[in-house]
Amino acid sequence: MVRVAIVGASGYTGVELIRLLRRHPSVKIGAVTSRGQDGEPVDRQFPSLSGCGLHFVDPAKVNWAEHQVVFFATPHATSMHLAREILGSGCRVIDLSADFRLRDRAEFERWYGVEHAAPELLSTAVYGLPELFGAELAEAQLVACAGCYPTAVQLACAPALAAGVVSPQGIIADCKSGVTGAGRAAKVSSLYSECADSFSAYASAGHRHQPEIAQGLSRVAGEAAELLFQPHLVPMLRGIHATVYLKKTAVTADWQQLYSDYYARHRFVRVREPGAHPATRDVRASNSAHLAVVDRGDTLMVLSVIDNLVKGASGQAVQCLNGMYGWPQETALDEYGTSP
Amino acid sequence: MVRVAIVGASGYTGVELIRLLRRHPSVKIGAVTSRGQDGEPVDRQFPSLSGCGLHFVDPAKVNWAEHQVVFFATPHATSMHLAREILGSGCRVIDLSADFRLRDRAEFERWYGVEHAAPELLSTAVYGLPELFGAELAEAQLVACAGCYPTAVQLACAPALAAGVVSPQGIIADCKSGVTGAGRAAKVSSLYSECADSFSAYASAGHRHQPEIAQGLSRVAGEAAELLFQPHLVPMLRGIHATVYLKKTAVTADWQQLYSDYYARHRFVRVREPGAHPATRDVRASNSAHLAVVDRGDTLMVLSVIDNLVKGASGQAVQCLNGMYGWPQETALDEYGTSP
Amino acid sequence: MVRVAIVGASGYTGVELIRLLRRHPSVKIGAVTSRGQDGEPVDRQFPSLSGCGLHFVDPAKVNWAEHQVVFFATPHATSMHLAREILGSGCRVIDLSADFRLRDRAEFERWYGVEHAAPELLSTAVYGLPELFGAELAEAQLVACAGCYPTAVQLACAPALAAGVVSPQGIIADCKSGVTGAGRAAKVSSLYSECADSFSAYASAGHRHQPEIAQGLSRVAGEAAELLFQPHLVPMLRGIHATVYLKKTAVTADWQQLYSDYYARHRFVRVREPGAHPATRDVRASNSAHLAVVDRGDTLMVLSVIDNLVKGASGQAVQCLNGMYGWPQETALDEYGTSP
Amino acid sequence: MVRVAIVGASGYTGVELIRLLRRHPSVKIGAVTSRGQDGEPVDRQFPSLSGCGLHFVDPAKVNWAEHQVVFFATPHATSMHLAREILGSGCRVIDLSADFRLRDRAEFERWYGVEHAAPELLSTAVYGLPELFGAELAEAQLVACAGCYPTAVQLACAPALAAGVVSPQGIIADCKSGVTGAGRAAKVSSLYSECADSFSAYASAGHRHQPEIAQGLSRVAGEAAELLFQPHLVPMLRGIHATVYLKKTAVTADWQQLYSDYYARHRFVRVREPGAHPATRDVRASNSAHLAVVDRGDTLMVLSVIDNLVKGASGQAVQCLNGMYGWPQETALDEYGTSP
Repeated sequence: MVRVAIVGASGYTGVELIRLLRRHPSVKIGAVTSRGQDGEPVDRQFPSLSGCGLHFVDPAKVNWAEHQVVFFATPHATSMHLAREILGSGCRVIDLSADFRLRDRAEFERWYGVEHAAPELLSTAVYGLPELFGAELAEAQLVACAGCYPTAVQLACAPALAAGVVSPQGIIADCKSGVTGAGRAAKVSSLYSECADSFSAYASAGHRHQPEIAQGLSRVAGEAAELLFQPHLVPMLRGIHATVYLKKTAVTADWQQLYSDYYARHRFVRVREPGAHPATRDVRASNSAHLAVVDRGDTLMVLSVIDNLVKGASGQAVQCLNGMYGWPQETALDEYGTSP
Repeated sequence: MVRVAIVGASGYTGVELIRLLRRHPSVKIGAVTSRGQDGEPVDRQFPSLSGCGLHFVDPAKVNWAEHQVVFFATPHATSMHLAREILGSGCRVIDLSADFRLRDRAEFERWYGVEHAAPELLSTAVYGLPELFGAELAEAQLVACAGCYPTAVQLACAPALAAGVVSPQGIIADCKSGVTGAGRAAKVSSLYSECADSFSAYASAGHRHQPEIAQGLSRVAGEAAELLFQPHLVPMLRGIHATVYLKKTAVTADWQQLYSDYYARHRFVRVREPGAHPATRDVRASNSAHLAVVDRGDTLMVLSVIDNLVKGASGQAVQCLNGMYGWPQETALDEYGTSP
Repeated sequence: MVRVAIVGASGYTGVELIRLLRRHPSVKIGAVTSRGQDGEPVDRQFPSLSGCGLHFVDPAKVNWAEHQVVFFATPHATSMHLAREILGSGCRVIDLSADFRLRDRAEFERWYGVEHAAPELLSTAVYGLPELFGAELAEAQLVACAGCYPTAVQLACAPALAAGVVSPQGIIADCKSGVTGAGRAAKVSSLYSECADSFSAYASAGHRHQPEIAQGLSRVAGEAAELLFQPHLVPMLRGIHATVYLKKTAVTADWQQLYSDYYARHRFVRVREPGAHPATRDVRASNSAHLAVVDRGDTLMVLSVIDNLVKGASGQAVQCLNGMYGWPQETALDEYGTSP
Repeated sequence: MVRVAIVGASGYTGVELIRLLRRHPSVKIGAVTSRGQDGEPVDRQFPSLSGCGLHFVDPAKVNWAEHQVVFFATPHATSMHLAREILGSGCRVIDLSADFRLRDRAEFERWYGVEHAAPELLSTAVYGLPELFGAELAEAQLVACAGCYPTAVQLACAPALAAGVVSPQGIIADCKSGVTGAGRAAKVSSLYSECADSFSAYASAGHRHQPEIAQGLSRVAGEAAELLFQPHLVPMLRGIHATVYLKKTAVTADWQQLYSDYYARHRFVRVREPGAHPATRDVRASNSAHLAVVDRGDTLMVLSVIDNLVKGASGQAVQCLNGMYGWPQETALDEYGTSP
């Protein structure tokens, strides 16, 4: 049994991580930290975990060395302060936050507005998006799980970019997210009364996931990729829908086949039948991504949906864990989504 | 033209009050206060009021004497600190908050947990629920508008209680409210991600609207009324639905007629046809209350819906204003609701 | 392995049943019927089941004798036409519909408006609500699973009624349901544009679940129970919330203890801590029921939540199956709910 | 007083049209037709219009000649069968449906799959989008009101296209609509249980609004415009959000100024401040369109929101009526939106 700790377990990715890991036959959850709730039963805070028997503990009380893996389900600028110590104690780290996603320290500091506290670790971090970069997980000590939007967009673009049949320039990713993507912080803009029955764009001046997506797509394309990324807020709980517009550079016979072949060995990515319109409900509470590929003249349009809390966060983290230990990738992740 | 000020205009009842008063042919909006937004255009904060031309002003800068009426769209424990001064300057006050609703100072202090700052005004305040107590408005200097739940419940009970055909004891009011009823404060419990796609009760240990309802029903019944009031939170923006269970004490021929007759002269209360199920959408954004009366054996069940921000707050305040000045009650309030 | 067939699998309880049964280690899903979709892949209709490998088959083509258990996830008045034949072929039947819930044929015919096609089976049917009547499941050939509202209400009332500390008369059950409770039929009243952002009561003239609840409560109480049952429609997908008002006949020391003791051996029913307000999200997609017990003077108020598609339908059916075969009750049902 | 008839008043644009026209000081509503509800009070069907006093009438009973204007709030392929007769009786026609929007008969027949019943009227119809083509309304006998998506997209593109600073080629319009856009027909795909808490694209093979948008943009640009239009369904009642990506052909100093100047005389179109993210709630229930202009490198991105039932349908129809009679454009349309 691998003993794991979860840091920052009082947010939505934290509770989702507990839900998933409790299914895992090779994992035992040790510490579950929350600064303000030391000693409190986790299911008092999250009654959906009723009967789980876990209690929050203050992170300062945790002996990291008693764990093999530490998950960070924290906002950015947290894990970078603890990672060095935890790695030093022999733990492997799976970070759901953004702290180690960007290879370029200056880029990180520009977009996140803080000095990086562990820049020497940036080059050692493995980017956690198993379908595209899974081979590196086995040896990873520090995994920086891909963000939610970046997962949906990169999965949508990779097959065509890798095949060199679309341009890595001029990509438009018009993305839509449910409100849990904004986290559990008490902000007026996240109130039910502000979000419900309404739709709007946000971050039109630039969003932190843009450099992350560009970095990943460049890697897949083998040359610098450039995209316009525009996120929107949808009045729903979970789910991301990316509508991606790619400029064709070749006339291929069969886009559908190209995508199906690319993901043939990856059971979490399903390329839907021609004419399908994947809905976020199709993947709700599951670790799947559904794609549809549509030929629109000069443009290849790809529709891509994931659950932002699962494939976009906690499920992906568990999938990375499976990759790190050589377990079957679907371990603890083989449940169907809940729809309706 | 009557010049009015609105204190605390950055919440939901504030923006709704502006929306309604801008229609009013005899009212000019003067000061619109907000402590933190002095000088900012109101429509920057509330784009639905786009082009209204109003700016927030710090309340400390307002000369009350330049206004004939001051509305308080503030949380409780605000108006009680300012009312004496404002009334003293010759203004009339229409208070949407709870500060002057309860006649009994001790009751107020027990339920609201603060000492009352102007207890001498409690006996002078007129309770603002025009259909039941409208006659007192003409002379009123200080009006304490009825709360949202109290409006829905009192309208549901009044005809039967006044006729003495149901018991003022053992009333059960099972009530449901949209989330705007919780106001615009940044609280985790009001987040979209906490409220959407879910339903729960709250305040099962007792809710502040209970003594207010009991006070009003006692007045209508002419004897002490006693009720069990249980509120619930509905994942919707606006609307209150009260399901009220009354114990019959008489076998009347026609409950439908009793209710229709009682509200015959009150155009905002519509007693729907037998078999109807009023929905909150039927009164969304309107000042109407819809009632349905159902004979359930020993029990008289009344269904009552209002928009909590209009008939339950800002619309009622305008209706009170109309009563205070002798204007037709529907002035500025004669719009149909928006449905769907 | 027990081979099961699912009749009427193109509705919401059908897809949920497949989701749950695919987890079951001792069950193999054979036929999945749908009259209009013979031969179509199930996951084309329900992409959340993507990759399940099942195909719909016309019910006329099914050889019942190849199955040990047949589930009916059909509207009422379907299973009563097929049950005799299927039972005769040696299958056991688990009926999620209402056809065999009421023991009294005349009562069934009055409420459902159709002649019963298999009245001789009514007395043999076991009512499927395992926490209250589970002992009978082991020998059952025909199980009539409890309805959604009846499950929530009976679980709320049983401990107090069984202890004789509340009256079986004058019970009020004010209940609220998500929209999936209305099924998947194309009706104007179930449109998003009719239901969203609104709340209303329905069936105020009487609802079919009333006699079912009364029958169950009478059995628990040992005398005729009588209740006023009023359902409401909530703009949410899943979930039932029952607010039940019971008249105390005794002053017991500890209502909380009474309830906790009653359900001590039943892991799907959790009596929440004093002061809790169970939300439907707490049990979303899980087979749990959460209860809270509140002392309100002369009244004992019980709050009860379930997921109408799981504990109120498909999960309960699986729980009954487990009971029929002597498997651990939580088999295939031990997942946490998904929240948010 | 102008006497008007409304054909097809039992859908969402019909009820909205009644709501708006009842405010109009120069209009009297005569016939309100519905084939299936002859004689029924309109407010029985639509309680939000409670007290309106109107009754549905079968269209066959209407004497068109008693009206000056006939509105069609019908699905497509209805008005084309009646328009000739009604125009012949001396009425003017305002058609909210698609029958007369496309000038090219073949284009209409290809996209709508029916033969056009009155092709000779196509060239006489005035396209009803007053901000862009309002000059033609005064003389119009037959107005084909712009569709909902076309309104949002054309308003977003017009200033830049008219100025020749973006290309009329390669436009991408990624659009999102609330569910009322699907109308009131009983379809499984429009059920609450299918749409709520989910997001998806639809009509990726092509949508009927595409040729309408292209026709309008070509007119504005003075050359053939070409766009990729992709609609999506949002779990909300009302509202359209268009995110439009335009390729710059010039480096202009001030996009914001260009847009503000273009709409300076049009009070229903508000160009929001730099950095704003218009939300559909900002225009809910109002006839306004809010735009935001964002410089994204080579791309000019425009965000555009309207209420699909008002500016996208019934409000626009009233605005056209005002234009036809030379009344101030804001008559009956000067209400603020309702938010929250």
